Amino acid sequence: MKFDLIDTVLEQSADRIVAIKHVTMAEEYLADHFPSFPVLPGVLMVETMVQAARRMLADRGDTRLVLGEVKGLKFGSFVRPGEALEVEVILNGSSGDEHHCRGIGRVLRHPTGGSGETAVSGRFTMRPIRRTPPGD
Amino acid sequence: MKFDLIDTVLEQSADRIVAIKHVTMAEEYLADHFPSFPVLPGVLMVETMVQAARRMLADRGDTRLVLGEVKGLKFGSFVRPGEALEVEVILNGSSGDEHHCRGIGRVLRHPTGGSGETAVSGRFTMRPIRRTPPGD
Amino acid sequence: MKFDLIDTVLEQSADRIVAIKHVTMAEEYLADHFPSFPVLPGVLMVETMVQAARRMLADRGDTRLVLGEVKGLKFGSFVRPGEALEVEVILNGSSGDEHHCRGIGRVLRHPTGGSGETAVSGRFTMRPIRRTPPGD
Amino acid sequence: MKFDLIDTVLEQSADRIVAIKHVTMAEEYLADHFPSFPVLPGVLMVETMVQAARRMLADRGDTRLVLGEVKGLKFGSFVRPGEALEVEVILNGSSGDEHHCRGIGRVLRHPTGGSGETAVSGRFTMRPIRRTPPGD
Amino acid sequence: MKFDLIDTVLEQSADRIVAIKHVTMAEEYLADHFPSFPVLPGVLMVETMVQAARRMLADRGDTRLVLGEVKGLKFGSFVRPGEALEVEVILNGSSGDEHHCRGIGRVLRHPTGGSGETAVSGRFTMRPIRRTPPGD
Amino acid sequence: MKFDLIDTVLEQSADRIVAIKHVTMAEEYLADHFPSFPVLPGVLMVETMVQAARRMLADRGDTRLVLGEVKGLKFGSFVRPGEALEVEVILNGSSGDEHHCRGIGRVLRHPTGGSGETAVSGRFTMRPIRRTPPGD
Repeated sequence: MKFDLIDTVLEQSADRIVAIKHVTMAEEYLADHFPSFPVLPGVLMVETMVQAARRMLADRGDTRLVLGEVKGLKFGSFVRPGEALEVEVILNGSSGDEHHCRGIGRVLRHPTGGSGETAVSGRFTMRPIRRTPPGD
Repeated sequence: MKFDLIDTVLEQSADRIVAIKHVTMAEEYLADHFPSFPVLPGVLMVETMVQAARRMLADRGDTRLVLGEVKGLKFGSFVRPGEALEVEVILNGSSGDEHHCRGIGRVLRHPTGGSGETAVSGRFTMRPIRRTPPGD
Repeated sequence: MKFDLIDTVLEQSADRIVAIKHVTMAEEYLADHFPSFPVLPGVLMVETMVQAARRMLADRGDTRLVLGEVKGLKFGSFVRPGEALEVEVILNGSSGDEHHCRGIGRVLRHPTGGSGETAVSGRFTMRPIRRTPPGD
Repeated sequence: MKFDLIDTVLEQSADRIVAIKHVTMAEEYLADHFPSFPVLPGVLMVETMVQAARRMLADRGDTRLVLGEVKGLKFGSFVRPGEALEVEVILNGSSGDEHHCRGIGRVLRHPTGGSGETAVSGRFTMRPIRRTPPGD
Repeated sequence: MKFDLIDTVLEQSADRIVAIKHVTMAEEYLADHFPSFPVLPGVLMVETMVQAARRMLADRGDTRLVLGEVKGLKFGSFVRPGEALEVEVILNGSSGDEHHCRGIGRVLRHPTGGSGETAVSGRFTMRPIRRTPPGD
Repeated sequence: MKFDLIDTVLEQSADRIVAIKHVTMAEEYLADHFPSFPVLPGVLMVETMVQAARRMLADRGDTRLVLGEVKGLKFGSFVRPGEALEVEVILNGSSGDEHHCRGIGRVLRHPTGGSGETAVSGRFTMRPIRRTPPGD
């Protein structure tokens, strides 16, 4: 499996991005999560928001931004194979090289495709990787 | 990657099935097909119809039906990551243990989700594997 | 798994190519197709012919040719792990940027290695991807 | 890749578990996260805590517990290939079928193997999957 | 990739087995070994002999036999994609629960399929896993 | 899975290298080796020594060195998920473009991390791939 969870970007500006992660039976993690109840793991919902934020912030320089903090994260509906997670990430502001984001993910279901229930919501910060030598 | 291309079944009867295959960047074949233009390979569109037909025909006994013949197969629009292929397979009739099917696959695009252009269409037969010993 | 089904090219000219696809237990799709009867899926036989055609036509320009149409495709013998599919693709002619091909795949079995029964045969066209923007 | 992030359990009781997740170059996600700076993604640190909590709580019934909420999550040091994440999860209490956990993950580095810097810390709840039919 | 390197067994008795491992571009390890020169790694030739020995010895009880010792192992020709390794393993004798084997692997090339050059040869012992608790 | 078994290099000089291979449940081969007793296969211990030797010898030119011969190879303790194999490879000398190495692999166990029992030891040679055309 490729660790690339953004399938398409629907809208993008300097402080907002809307992107979609599809969920398919062909993705290997579903075989383990869970054997008889395949759903997108919650942490991969968060990673979808993280990767969306990374794209939104890519114009500002380093593209290797990582999670700094996560606050008030709540999980709701599941996203099953054949459904999709639509994430919307908004940049609330930046302090130094830390970027404060707010994200929400909704379930898209076929065939209507309309915005469904909330699957995940919360706030998080993105920061540069500040590479340090091993052992420090 | 799991070779399971049916993400969800929308409708199913004894002679008709409608199912969906999502396409995601996380699926490995897209890295090779093609490096700078990831699209669902045409043969996997056909396999989606084959796996849908196998589910539709599962009540009739052996679930290990395979492709026998394919006729008049045409490919149209591509299906990209973040889009989906909605296949509709109809059973036209059976002769002995061969099942004659007609299939069509349409592109589903967000956020409208409405039926889009035709990605694939054609006729095909499904037949039992008729296991024979190697060397025969 | 890599989506690269040409293991070796035995012969190649401007309008003919002979290539081999080995089948091994280590390839993941066999675990699903089928759990107790591992055989090369029919659509991957077709993909082997498509990838062989793409190599044969590579000198003519765009290497990202895709399937356009498939006619009179018939499947015969299975190809099991430890066996190989030898495909022969012949260019029958071109109209504009569409290339008309005829292909046949035979089973190679050890230890004789001689040409065995027909596994697949049919006609197909290859066409450029004609990239169009999403939504068109 | 298997979505099984608990390599070994060092200590386990009804309300506390200590477990280890090794990081290796052979794991595929490192090729993408990041091409020239392979580190365990933050969300997989969280998933390690989630899977540890699931084991700790397995005696109480349903083993398919998922993330409900996450609070005060902070990320610190990276975990590189050849290093390990040692997570300690403590059950703070349960309300109904929701379990309130506190977790911390530290970096283990060879050859000393002693507890290193904090890689992740935070609070989270685990809840049953409460299966509902698609479309609700 | 599945760690199952026996594609087919050509001959088998209580003290001799002949088996085949095909090599395909679709197997992932070839992408790394080596990027511009894909060949079956030497250790996987050995593993093919080990897995063949395990099948030959399966009738004697525990099927989870592992390598004990290896002596006089020599590597010769490479095995490329589209070629195969034919291994022949002979049981020289057993002492207690250790089984002394001699193995040779030859390259099979299409289209002749005849026995080719030696790719690997050597002696090795197989022994039960003798499970012991971690920490002993 | 990536066929890259060196997770970190602890020490390196022109004729000695110490490196570590972690073992994790996420690595796919463990599912097959063995279903109820996951341990690092012996041949992958050897490959870890081979890849360490390749790094040690990389300054001398061709980085695509392969195994030539293996002598007096013995396997001891298992390496389980959450444990690591620490290999030490020493260059005993070179004759022409063949390099004579001696290697030993020890089990590293948490939380002490101290050097544990011997998992593998033996002598082996590394030689250039001497590329020859197929069919020779």
